Amino acid sequence: MSRYEKGKQVLESIQEKSLEELFKSIDDIAPDISRFVVEFPYAEIYTRQEVDLKTRELCTVAALTVLGTVPQLKDHINAALNVGNTPTEIVEIIMQMSAYCGFPKAINSIAAAKEVFVERDLI
Amino acid sequence: MSRYEKGKQVLESIQEKSLEELFKSIDDIAPDISRFVVEFPYAEIYTRQEVDLKTRELCTVAALTVLGTVPQLKDHINAALNVGNTPTEIVEIIMQMSAYCGFPKAINSIAAAKEVFVERDLI
Amino acid sequence: MSRYEKGKQVLESIQEKSLEELFKSIDDIAPDISRFVVEFPYAEIYTRQEVDLKTRELCTVAALTVLGTVPQLKDHINAALNVGNTPTEIVEIIMQMSAYCGFPKAINSIAAAKEVFVERDLI
Amino acid sequence: MSRYEKGKQVLESIQEKSLEELFKSIDDIAPDISRFVVEFPYAEIYTRQEVDLKTRELCTVAALTVLGTVPQLKDHINAALNVGNTPTEIVEIIMQMSAYCGFPKAINSIAAAKEVFVERDLI
Amino acid sequence: MSRYEKGKQVLESIQEKSLEELFKSIDDIAPDISRFVVEFPYAEIYTRQEVDLKTRELCTVAALTVLGTVPQLKDHINAALNVGNTPTEIVEIIMQMSAYCGFPKAINSIAAAKEVFVERDLI
Amino acid sequence: MSRYEKGKQVLESIQEKSLEELFKSIDDIAPDISRFVVEFPYAEIYTRQEVDLKTRELCTVAALTVLGTVPQLKDHINAALNVGNTPTEIVEIIMQMSAYCGFPKAINSIAAAKEVFVERDLI
Repeated sequence: MSRYEKGKQVLESIQEKSLEELFKSIDDIAPDISRFVVEFPYAEIYTRQEVDLKTRELCTVAALTVLGTVPQLKDHINAALNVGNTPTEIVEIIMQMSAYCGFPKAINSIAAAKEVFVERDLI
Repeated sequence: MSRYEKGKQVLESIQEKSLEELFKSIDDIAPDISRFVVEFPYAEIYTRQEVDLKTRELCTVAALTVLGTVPQLKDHINAALNVGNTPTEIVEIIMQMSAYCGFPKAINSIAAAKEVFVERDLI
Repeated sequence: MSRYEKGKQVLESIQEKSLEELFKSIDDIAPDISRFVVEFPYAEIYTRQEVDLKTRELCTVAALTVLGTVPQLKDHINAALNVGNTPTEIVEIIMQMSAYCGFPKAINSIAAAKEVFVERDLI
Repeated sequence: MSRYEKGKQVLESIQEKSLEELFKSIDDIAPDISRFVVEFPYAEIYTRQEVDLKTRELCTVAALTVLGTVPQLKDHINAALNVGNTPTEIVEIIMQMSAYCGFPKAINSIAAAKEVFVERDLI
Repeated sequence: MSRYEKGKQVLESIQEKSLEELFKSIDDIAPDISRFVVEFPYAEIYTRQEVDLKTRELCTVAALTVLGTVPQLKDHINAALNVGNTPTEIVEIIMQMSAYCGFPKAINSIAAAKEVFVERDLI
Repeated sequence: MSRYEKGKQVLESIQEKSLEELFKSIDDIAPDISRFVVEFPYAEIYTRQEVDLKTRELCTVAALTVLGTVPQLKDHINAALNVGNTPTEIVEIIMQMSAYCGFPKAINSIAAAKEVFVERDLI
């Protein structure tokens, strides 16, 4: 299996969406960036066994809370749920971030988490 | 036990240093900020049972990689080791961050991790 | 009066809104974060006499301009007005930030200030 | 010609919009900030001959991708096109940024570029 | 008096250093950037009467705490003292920032303040 | 030629240093991150013909000025010189960034450029 095929499989398994759906808004002008995402983080990082996916996705939620990019935060809150985190664990880690990146980014990230939980009928 | 005593105990247990040592450089001009750190993140967040300390500290390492504040990153790499993470797990999560905050911050954070590992005779 | 009660009183007096209204969008999934905001910045910082509230809120507007989190910036532009700053003073400080965080964040923050001023019939 | 007149001419030539239109949303509360933008970056920087405008605007697109301020990114994607960059060159530079600021900001910036390209009937 | 002369006078009065001393490390390769700093923030912003210099410098300290650029933070802690702020007021505002940008940046900024206070024999 | 070999060749040609030298400080604890840098940005991005290397490296200098990571900024100022940019062009683009990320980051980046120019006997 090629690096691309391996990465695509991992990405679609974690995100529970097809690659096409995830990148449909930008693939017509930048087809290579979805390939980069598939071949680098998904084929090369999320496949590594040193840390399990449940912990990896929680760390990504922490990172995206600090970064403040809401669309990707929502994608990875979904991914975090898909690989076995509970809504409570996700909220806990976002709250923890308030000590490191301040309350505004933490509060906006909890609002993003709530949107995901509502979309999935979890609350 | 007061909130302060509880937080101080948790902080000193995680960091394996006394509060006085950790804040000695700033306590003479800002004595309250160490109290805030004790009473808010340590008494209120790291004591919560919803996520274990091992995962919490790995998420903090992820966050501080994105934030780029090296002294606190080193403190929490130490803390992450103290609560049961291996050097490999810490390096894995920092590498994972390169996809979210770019290579420069990831590489500088790996250099910080190496300094900690050397100080602790782990490599 | 408990720390929570003191912080709640200060927050509601500065923001001129009830705590429930301010946090209604996230309190169902993360009830503790509003308590953290009440007990830490409001009970512990905004109550301190060393700097007056008018200056503190102007500094928070400066900080949130650099941070770029619009919802909290709007809350604190409201708060800055509530504790005695004029629209002119708020706009001045945001303009001053252009030298430190660049024009894009300053311009977007002035647009946020304008929304607040319109909501309050100030312009 | 005064500094202001020179800067206004350069700004309007690069942006292909009148100064009034570009700043109409904030000029009533902060008339001086558009003057600062005219007199500092446009009169003083974009007029310098050491680097051509085509390269300057591509560098600004790179910077605004890292900064993450979408309205100004869209203005400068427009400007980059106006001074001779192709959509392909703009997308290339934004993709390149994924290595320095991570995929989330690069992907959101490509989505912003797509909006501009659609508005200009380029795709 | 020209814009440059006015700005130079304000800058030197606030910073209590000559322009040459402040920019000596970079003036040989980028002589225009000190002119930009003189003509834009100092001639155009710090001269405005709408907010007094004491408050303006405290807001700049807040902003630079969030931004995390230590050399300029130290310059403006010096400036804040020069225009009438006490060490206590400066420390207060930096501590306040912990709620907005997290503890790491606030703690590193307090350490920078301490260096300035030691250099000025204030502690 | 494999992706790795192609990327290594491009990286060493642009940086004018061996991969081993560039990553010697972290390769013992994180050998894969240098491979990621080789295989992703160097094999996949800097090899693309849509934008020439001279412009690409100037855009990277712009990005790293906004990001504020000095070691990588210095590496890419070196790279920018290696692929044909003059010191003047590099300083111009960093100065231009002051409008987008503020003066502190621009000034610190000019100081970094000066260190590189001195190391290369260019001034």
